[in-house]
Amino acid sequence: MSIKDSNSRSPATYGGSSSGLNKEFGSHFIIELINCSPDRLKKVKDVKQIMGEVVQKSKSTVVRSSFHQFQPEGVTGMILIRESHFAIHTWPEESYVAADIFTCGQEMDPYIAMEVMEERFEAKEVRYQVIRRGF
Amino acid sequence: MSIKDSNSRSPATYGGSSSGLNKEFGSHFIIELINCSPDRLKKVKDVKQIMGEVVQKSKSTVVRSSFHQFQPEGVTGMILIRESHFAIHTWPEESYVAADIFTCGQEMDPYIAMEVMEERFEAKEVRYQVIRRGF
Repeated sequence: MSIKDSNSRSPATYGGSSSGLNKEFGSHFIIELINCSPDRLKKVKDVKQIMGEVVQKSKSTVVRSSFHQFQPEGVTGMILIRESHFAIHTWPEESYVAADIFTCGQEMDPYIAMEVMEERFEAKEVRYQVIRRGF
Repeated sequence: MSIKDSNSRSPATYGGSSSGLNKEFGSHFIIELINCSPDRLKKVKDVKQIMGEVVQKSKSTVVRSSFHQFQPEGVTGMILIRESHFAIHTWPEESYVAADIFTCGQEMDPYIAMEVMEERFEAKEVRYQVIRRGF
């Protein structure tokens, strides 16, 4: 996964939003990946590799990333991106992944990110909701 | 902020949930902190200190944390906790903080976490929603 620094972040979008917010700062995708391949969810090495692909294909710019191995298996990880963040938590024993993507700006594509996660974790079902962030 | 390792994570809660999910893995709090004190949102040092207090008072167990400084100001940060995660993104120029807390298990208190954030970022208004995670 390439780590690239960045010096600015996307500003708020003012008014005229379909979300009903006066100031919108980004979209938060809350994603449930169901009936995944458990073998892909057990170890940091595998989850990190898949998330590296997600980051690259969705054209995200990584600023920092951090993963933690649970024992005997299961992973929690976060990737700070210029466009905000990815978070991922795996439960191999339930073939389940809870992921979320907070994206501000138009540079990265969260739909491609979800597609890559679905494919590489071999999820049989994906449910998601989008929350517009701001006030 | 104390960094403590952990070896297991909370299992799913089965059935009987008021969320309508068959398997519930945790609660995801999506939090908008509005009209904060801009001075508290500018630098990693300050945001990290406040989040350290949030972690401690909400009885979270940190496994890893990572913060990034935007130029000229603004911070993005993530704290992996045994009970899942905190994420925070600040826009000092808008006096706004977008935070989220994903918590599984009953060990940490997300309401106390929100209270401490409200108080320490001096937010005049807090809006939040809770999403039950699982399937």
